[in-house]
Amino acid sequence: MQTRVERMWGQIRNWRGGDASDLHLRPDLPDRDTARLRTLLDATIDGRGGEMAARKRATEIGACFLALDSSGRRRFFELIANEYDHNDAEVDAAMDAVRDAPNSTDRAAAENELRNILRPKRDRLFRRFVGLEGGLSFLVDLREELLPIRNESPELRTLDNDLRVVLARFFDIGLLRLERLTWDSPAVVLEKLIEYEAVHEIRGWDDLRGRLNTGRRCYAFFHPAMANDPVIFVEVAFTKGVPTELEPLLDHSMDQTDPFAADTATFYSISNCHDGLVGVSLGDMLIKSVVDELLREFPNLENLVTLSPIPGFRQWFDEHASHLRALVPSGIPEDPSEAADLQPELLRLAAQYLIVERRSSTNPTMQAERALDPVAHFHLSNGAEVAAINWLANPTPTGWSRSLGMMVNYRYVPDKLEQRHDSYAETGRVAASDELKKLLKLDK
Amino acid sequence: MQTRVERMWGQIRNWRGGDASDLHLRPDLPDRDTARLRTLLDATIDGRGGEMAARKRATEIGACFLALDSSGRRRFFELIANEYDHNDAEVDAAMDAVRDAPNSTDRAAAENELRNILRPKRDRLFRRFVGLEGGLSFLVDLREELLPIRNESPELRTLDNDLRVVLARFFDIGLLRLERLTWDSPAVVLEKLIEYEAVHEIRGWDDLRGRLNTGRRCYAFFHPAMANDPVIFVEVAFTKGVPTELEPLLDHSMDQTDPFAADTATFYSISNCHDGLVGVSLGDMLIKSVVDELLREFPNLENLVTLSPIPGFRQWFDEHASHLRALVPSGIPEDPSEAADLQPELLRLAAQYLIVERRSSTNPTMQAERALDPVAHFHLSNGAEVAAINWLANPTPTGWSRSLGMMVNYRYVPDKLEQRHDSYAETGRVAASDELKKLLKLDK
Amino acid sequence: MQTRVERMWGQIRNWRGGDASDLHLRPDLPDRDTARLRTLLDATIDGRGGEMAARKRATEIGACFLALDSSGRRRFFELIANEYDHNDAEVDAAMDAVRDAPNSTDRAAAENELRNILRPKRDRLFRRFVGLEGGLSFLVDLREELLPIRNESPELRTLDNDLRVVLARFFDIGLLRLERLTWDSPAVVLEKLIEYEAVHEIRGWDDLRGRLNTGRRCYAFFHPAMANDPVIFVEVAFTKGVPTELEPLLDHSMDQTDPFAADTATFYSISNCHDGLVGVSLGDMLIKSVVDELLREFPNLENLVTLSPIPGFRQWFDEHASHLRALVPSGIPEDPSEAADLQPELLRLAAQYLIVERRSSTNPTMQAERALDPVAHFHLSNGAEVAAINWLANPTPTGWSRSLGMMVNYRYVPDKLEQRHDSYAETGRVAASDELKKLLKLDK
Amino acid sequence: MQTRVERMWGQIRNWRGGDASDLHLRPDLPDRDTARLRTLLDATIDGRGGEMAARKRATEIGACFLALDSSGRRRFFELIANEYDHNDAEVDAAMDAVRDAPNSTDRAAAENELRNILRPKRDRLFRRFVGLEGGLSFLVDLREELLPIRNESPELRTLDNDLRVVLARFFDIGLLRLERLTWDSPAVVLEKLIEYEAVHEIRGWDDLRGRLNTGRRCYAFFHPAMANDPVIFVEVAFTKGVPTELEPLLDHSMDQTDPFAADTATFYSISNCHDGLVGVSLGDMLIKSVVDELLREFPNLENLVTLSPIPGFRQWFDEHASHLRALVPSGIPEDPSEAADLQPELLRLAAQYLIVERRSSTNPTMQAERALDPVAHFHLSNGAEVAAINWLANPTPTGWSRSLGMMVNYRYVPDKLEQRHDSYAETGRVAASDELKKLLKLDK
Repeated sequence: MQTRVERMWGQIRNWRGGDASDLHLRPDLPDRDTARLRTLLDATIDGRGGEMAARKRATEIGACFLALDSSGRRRFFELIANEYDHNDAEVDAAMDAVRDAPNSTDRAAAENELRNILRPKRDRLFRRFVGLEGGLSFLVDLREELLPIRNESPELRTLDNDLRVVLARFFDIGLLRLERLTWDSPAVVLEKLIEYEAVHEIRGWDDLRGRLNTGRRCYAFFHPAMANDPVIFVEVAFTKGVPTELEPLLDHSMDQTDPFAADTATFYSISNCHDGLVGVSLGDMLIKSVVDELLREFPNLENLVTLSPIPGFRQWFDEHASHLRALVPSGIPEDPSEAADLQPELLRLAAQYLIVERRSSTNPTMQAERALDPVAHFHLSNGAEVAAINWLANPTPTGWSRSLGMMVNYRYVPDKLEQRHDSYAETGRVAASDELKKLLKLDK
Repeated sequence: MQTRVERMWGQIRNWRGGDASDLHLRPDLPDRDTARLRTLLDATIDGRGGEMAARKRATEIGACFLALDSSGRRRFFELIANEYDHNDAEVDAAMDAVRDAPNSTDRAAAENELRNILRPKRDRLFRRFVGLEGGLSFLVDLREELLPIRNESPELRTLDNDLRVVLARFFDIGLLRLERLTWDSPAVVLEKLIEYEAVHEIRGWDDLRGRLNTGRRCYAFFHPAMANDPVIFVEVAFTKGVPTELEPLLDHSMDQTDPFAADTATFYSISNCHDGLVGVSLGDMLIKSVVDELLREFPNLENLVTLSPIPGFRQWFDEHASHLRALVPSGIPEDPSEAADLQPELLRLAAQYLIVERRSSTNPTMQAERALDPVAHFHLSNGAEVAAINWLANPTPTGWSRSLGMMVNYRYVPDKLEQRHDSYAETGRVAASDELKKLLKLDK
Repeated sequence: MQTRVERMWGQIRNWRGGDASDLHLRPDLPDRDTARLRTLLDATIDGRGGEMAARKRATEIGACFLALDSSGRRRFFELIANEYDHNDAEVDAAMDAVRDAPNSTDRAAAENELRNILRPKRDRLFRRFVGLEGGLSFLVDLREELLPIRNESPELRTLDNDLRVVLARFFDIGLLRLERLTWDSPAVVLEKLIEYEAVHEIRGWDDLRGRLNTGRRCYAFFHPAMANDPVIFVEVAFTKGVPTELEPLLDHSMDQTDPFAADTATFYSISNCHDGLVGVSLGDMLIKSVVDELLREFPNLENLVTLSPIPGFRQWFDEHASHLRALVPSGIPEDPSEAADLQPELLRLAAQYLIVERRSSTNPTMQAERALDPVAHFHLSNGAEVAAINWLANPTPTGWSRSLGMMVNYRYVPDKLEQRHDSYAETGRVAASDELKKLLKLDK
Repeated sequence: MQTRVERMWGQIRNWRGGDASDLHLRPDLPDRDTARLRTLLDATIDGRGGEMAARKRATEIGACFLALDSSGRRRFFELIANEYDHNDAEVDAAMDAVRDAPNSTDRAAAENELRNILRPKRDRLFRRFVGLEGGLSFLVDLREELLPIRNESPELRTLDNDLRVVLARFFDIGLLRLERLTWDSPAVVLEKLIEYEAVHEIRGWDDLRGRLNTGRRCYAFFHPAMANDPVIFVEVAFTKGVPTELEPLLDHSMDQTDPFAADTATFYSISNCHDGLVGVSLGDMLIKSVVDELLREFPNLENLVTLSPIPGFRQWFDEHASHLRALVPSGIPEDPSEAADLQPELLRLAAQYLIVERRSSTNPTMQAERALDPVAHFHLSNGAEVAAINWLANPTPTGWSRSLGMMVNYRYVPDKLEQRHDSYAETGRVAASDELKKLLKLDK
């Protein structure tokens, strides 16, 4: 199977009518070749020959990048990180103009100019990629390649942030289209689900068909410029009662639940499809759009919940519950009763980890400390509550090593999403069910 | 027939499940009502209740705006112009932070912060409209309503510019889709052509069908969030030989030219569909995309030309050729031979007007003075040349009053577009055919 | 505008790659040219060169037919009527073989052979047209041209019947697709509605848009081989209460009735699109399919009715109510009260005409005498009842001259359709509302 | 995985709104239950309650059939075979009427009546199935179930023939749509290819994707009433040079041949998808439609050939070449040179088998004796020629046991298809390449 980058080659060849790059750069991009690349970058960014010509030239840059090896690509990133940001001297001058503006009209003009000057030059390059067939995908993959090295210098970090901002703009929710995927969808789309499913691996086409069966749903966001490539998708199972273990949800083959006879829809898997979109937040809108969609189609649904992992629990447990470490089996116990006497204490600890533990937030719109667990933080930010913690819900080696086999139901109550979102964002207070509060002896 | 705003009402009612605004603002938006509106604006911009809630709240703002009368709308615009820009004190502090940054890493962070602070608060409102069904249209129409009053204060001018920037970002060429419109297209789309055609009025459905006949083509750009509403469209006629008069092009009913037997494709009309997108330049990319498309389908085409008006000629003529004014008939002469002896001199003057006359450019990417005539400037910026001026090409009252009946062929030569674009942008030099240069006694 | 046959020419030219017929028949098809035509017919029917070749040859025959003038076409019809039926001698022999069969196995084989021999030779020609692009349309139009002369000889009558049988087979309801037409439908389809509407003329595109508005519906059957050309369509209006006059139904522009707030759906117009399909009954299935569709979408509907003309009333009245003829105004009375004293008697007579009067049926599945009025017969055969007769429902000259301004509501009661259909087919008994029965002093 | 009949159950449940049959027949259909079934059959065939009611009743019959076990189904078939044909006494009377007709008009009417009476009553049942969602599939599967027992009585044989005739009518080529299948096609369609491929098994989804790659094509006929279920499909490989062995054609993964750089298109597999359509000939039209399509898209193609098995060779060889039997290895020789000295003689024998051997034809349109080999007969009937026999083209156990490893190229020469088809049909003469004729010492 081709890697993403190899697939992109096909696209680029397509862009360029079959020719490889005319620049003939050496794969490791030695110094003597950067001048040629710089000339091409300048012409593209300045829009020489008109917009159409500039966009065609952007394909040449794409072809160059793809022909580079890993050290060449690192040099490419360094080049555009170091030389294609804004110009500090221009910024200083523009700030002086703002400060010295004699009146508000002139100040408004000067501020506008300052904004333009602060915009990095490479922005005009990124934007030109988008107009190309496959160009938006290229930009996403470009960032994916940058991620591993982005922390090596402040300039690379800034470049990464610039790319994130551009991508966030083009992946604005207003441009995405919610689609239900079914067994009637094109194979070229469905195979992407197999490739991208990050939570519960899809084991081939039969497994996939099961996940699209009567008692299941799959919804994805698509971008109009990436027609056959989902951006993020969520998988739903219809059940009677809120599920407390994972396995029945993954055994699709037997599932013939009639959604009209179910009372619960469980989001059992949500997968971001592209690492290059890290930091571009779409999961919240996807879940809520699907909640709306499901309630419209199935007014019979009473519970909209997840069955979620607790990815950070084991590490926290090892650090904070050293008195119990020795008692906990290192692997999943063959006989469940072995761990049974630990159950009450472990559930209590999990509740504490999810509901009480905090860390400071990096998100500027979050004023309070956030929940320590990243999955908890995601659902709480969306306005969900921690509804239940399920003992031995995932009794697999992975499940044991990450969270001692426990899983969580987060519950989405449409009427309470907004208030809970605000309360969490402003005070960091975690919405939890009465049982869990009781377990922790918290006030309601 | 409904006006655009009335149609939008239907959409808004749709957004809001049939209810009118809950705010019950008085149509003229008196002072005592602005506080309620401000609260709603703040909550939307701050994203209270999460992104989904904020976007739903944006529909409420849309509904409020549409329920206002013209003086209320003016006050609405003034409110968001005056109170929802950035904060000058914050800008000053952020500029200080940039200046005082002890090292380049801190400076990069401070510059990033400065960019964020310079971004007007209302940007987050505009962006939230886009995620709504019909929201992008609303934003376009909002700007259309602002245009007539945008020059009344610096703040309104800044607001208009902010809207333009947001719209330019969402109408990025990379998001638009080129489509050929035919008689198989949905009626709801075709009726828009009748409404939007700005150059040569479409006189009903029979006329429209003619313009989509064998010997004709119509291409438009569409935005994915405005599915049935074209953004800009161009009409093409296939002919044998370059057309020298308008009438045969408009008599579609007789036209059965086989495009494979033609040697010329004439762009006889290009219409921007939305005033709210003024200043968002799309015509260049549309023409060039269609040129590519036509040449791929019909390799037999030798000439890609326009038959264009000379909108500013008459005014220039009246000012600069006062010696001739008395000789020129005031209306279109019944007997063409009447004006025949003026023909050589008028053609020469038209050539001078198009090719020699200049004005300074407002476009920052144009370094030189631009052509005086706006249509000439558009095609020259695209890289076309002035190929011929046709005497009595449009012998109608309008044609006479605007350009003494003359029309121009601009010629698009694919191989020369880039070089001509650059030459015009850098030196202001106008590409013209040898005949016209000879007429003006210019060097080649 | 092109006639149908002229449009077909374009199609045929398409079939044949631009060439006219190679046979060069004289337009009036003189005797000396029929031999050449016969050779072509024989080769096509015998399938010489394989099926693909035979179907291509059928296009040649189509091109020949279309190049003939009206006397040539008559001769064409006579040729295939007289010479391309079955062979009587072969029929006789095959009947002998059936009669002489020594056992049931041989008899079954002989009967099968007899059936094949009874099948007219031209059947294989007709069938080959269907495989051609546009071929099914051609066959429909061919029969339309035959209709005016079909009664001139027994052979032509048989030919017409053969064509009807072939068409009935290809227009089997199982192959048709019910579609709702809206303002989003392709213009090429919608213009056909304007052309085909036979009951209440559509006066241009604005009128058409009105008929596709919120409070209206239009449904059509389409054949997969005639993609853009409806076969039959029905127009529906949603109202509160059963409509008693025509005019409000035709004033679409004002109509914004919300179908969910209506209690009645009125079928106010049903049009067969193709004369060539006369005798191929599709209206019954169309109405019932739409009834199902509407009830599924709008469970709020209580009445499913028509507002129908009484086309045969005036003639029957003139023959049977001579005592009243002199009293009835010859034209629509300016002052409605003029005719008011006649109202009770005329309503009674209309009820008698619709409910009591009979004629013998030509339809073999109808065992009893049928209603005299053709529209009544259509709806009664579908299982509807005569629900009400409305005085001055259509006070136009046409309405007056056909039915003295009266119109009928036929009512479709889903649960009673089958029983009423059977009762009417077996006994001829007409289902009528209690009021109408009372008016006629009939028992319930 | 569900069997076809089990899948059909879902459909039927759909037809009937979830209810099982109301008739509650015992699965083995004992005598005492047939009366109830007969009543239902009569009502459906007579169209009681109108056409819509009759078609709905047909679903009840479908549900009954599907609830029967295999002996019940046999009794179902026997019931409609024995009791729902035409009526012999009516046939006799109608034949008398034809014979006694006093004139040609009356005779025409009597013949028409005779045709109607010869039509089996069950025809009206079959036809009503077609109007149901999934009904055409049901009819196809019904015949598939009849096939194994059709030769048990003359009545069952007649029933099978009636079904074949009905299906042939509904699967008229004029109603089928040629579609190219690609990796963009719906998974629900593509999985059918895996299921139906009868020649060279598709080993899962990766293998399938390979068969839809750049250097491959797959085309299928679809019926509008069986949207996601192909009727017949053919697989094509583009190569440089005519392929002489099978294996490279089946190794899709490596194939990146650019069709524009190829000179040969090889039809390497053609599969009928439904046993129930046996005797309904569609392969000829499929191949020729694809030949047209390919030549239009790739004018560079010089050879349109097959690489076909010789299914009957081994049996013929065993019977006719007993002197060689002992020399031929029983299994595929490990060392190809082992059989090398037999090669000339075996190739000669294969040529004789394909080109010279004959059997009498059962097809009435074939006047001469046909080729003995069924695959040869198929391609020769289409107008192809036997172009080459390839030694060890399929050196697998199957290939060896069927045809001693040899395979054939049949060549389709567009200009010669008609003449060769006719020549073969009329004289039985097999078109063959000069080499093969030379091998057999035949005259050209």
